[in-house]
Amino acid sequence: MTLDPNAVGATGGPVELSWTSKDCLLYALGVGAGLDELEFATEKDQKVLPTMAVVLYARGAVPMHKIGAFDPAMLVHGEQAIELARPLPTGGTLKTTGKIAALYDKGKGAVVVSETESVDAATGELLFRTRGSAFIRGAGGFGGDRGPSAPSYEITPREPNHVVSYKTRPDQALLYRLSGDRNPLHSDPEFAKRAGFPRPILHGLCTYGFTGRALLHALCGGDPARFKSIEGRFSKPVFPGDTLTIKMWVDGNRCLFQTVDEAGDVVIDQGRMSFA
Amino acid sequence: MTLDPNAVGATGGPVELSWTSKDCLLYALGVGAGLDELEFATEKDQKVLPTMAVVLYARGAVPMHKIGAFDPAMLVHGEQAIELARPLPTGGTLKTTGKIAALYDKGKGAVVVSETESVDAATGELLFRTRGSAFIRGAGGFGGDRGPSAPSYEITPREPNHVVSYKTRPDQALLYRLSGDRNPLHSDPEFAKRAGFPRPILHGLCTYGFTGRALLHALCGGDPARFKSIEGRFSKPVFPGDTLTIKMWVDGNRCLFQTVDEAGDVVIDQGRMSFA
Repeated sequence: MTLDPNAVGATGGPVELSWTSKDCLLYALGVGAGLDELEFATEKDQKVLPTMAVVLYARGAVPMHKIGAFDPAMLVHGEQAIELARPLPTGGTLKTTGKIAALYDKGKGAVVVSETESVDAATGELLFRTRGSAFIRGAGGFGGDRGPSAPSYEITPREPNHVVSYKTRPDQALLYRLSGDRNPLHSDPEFAKRAGFPRPILHGLCTYGFTGRALLHALCGGDPARFKSIEGRFSKPVFPGDTLTIKMWVDGNRCLFQTVDEAGDVVIDQGRMSFA
Repeated sequence: MTLDPNAVGATGGPVELSWTSKDCLLYALGVGAGLDELEFATEKDQKVLPTMAVVLYARGAVPMHKIGAFDPAMLVHGEQAIELARPLPTGGTLKTTGKIAALYDKGKGAVVVSETESVDAATGELLFRTRGSAFIRGAGGFGGDRGPSAPSYEITPREPNHVVSYKTRPDQALLYRLSGDRNPLHSDPEFAKRAGFPRPILHGLCTYGFTGRALLHALCGGDPARFKSIEGRFSKPVFPGDTLTIKMWVDGNRCLFQTVDEAGDVVIDQGRMSFA
């Protein structure tokens, strides 16, 4: 299992993906929208949660096979960024192109950074871009660039401007996974035990979706058109049923944030978000 | 608005309908299956809840237009029966034929009874039959047969053999409706108020699904192959968030049941179920 640093720059796609209003409702319910957010949870005057971009972009557009053979079970989601060019439509068809943006050799493991761009298939209009990084355990030592230390910031010791808490449900992952990520780590108790967890963990991107809802309502008045970008780093697994608390430090139209679990541990770190 | 008694016997279809494993998972979550029923809530060794027949049969096969013009908003679900010929597959295509089985003139309103039969589209194998009745307020007086008094039974005054309680969620209807019934009575507070309810009510067929789960686990060991038939009459609206209690009186391989709400009022009455 040796990764190929020459994969950097490899492109893929375009890959088409179609979605419907129902997909948007299912995603919204999956990340906790409900009776207080009917404009996201029902089709009446329907709006789409900005973080839904992470389930809409056509993953197959990233030519992951070009980096070489690795065990998908060893891959852990690291960071995830979304930059929105416009509010997500309630349905349509998009085309995604992707590329391997970076591949770093961290010794014990490797970090692969992918970027995607999704446009409306009918008009070519840019919808959103994503950037994600994944850590592949055991895949280092291939002689690649070690890469920069991850960009980071320190929260200045002041009280957050906003704090929002949402309780996830014990069966949250069972609903969230119907939006696409059927990894049994999130649903199968035996599989989760073999992976070293006492029980199935919540999808990082589900936690991300709860976090995005908190930011949307606290900073954008619930208007997806004002939600411009979000990024963060997954720092600790969350168990379904946990309460997530999103702390926001606002500076102008930018915000730093952290999401913490019931124990007070940071589960999404280095969060940044921008809004209009 | 005058209904036509000659519509009785009119047939419709066959109408095809396809479904997938994901539809079955969504239905299962919509009627409250979760962490304790992973074989219904995830695709691992997946089974299908028997009551899903009510969202699978192709409604359009019943030639409702033949009874004449009526206001769909005045239609209230009365009774619902399912007879299963085999466990529902986790996906496929079925063909449904339907007929108007009866049309009764109750004076103030009308009762229309419809029957359907659904077969596997590929093999022709019978999957299930349904029988449903609806009361159409304000549609009586067309000169039709008054019909029999609804068949009924009295529960003998003895303790039920099984009592199972399930708590529905405040946003249960938002999830259940993604299985097909998007009537805003179950999601739109303003619409519900205009219809005379303080807030949206739960779908009768969602209550029916919770009830079916209780019967399946209490009487069939959770095995859909042992669940043969179910019928019941909707007697009172349920509000999402209510706890439903299903009381079962067993006699051999038949069972009489009632579903009651938190106030102790019967919400599904005249329930009958058979099992192997």
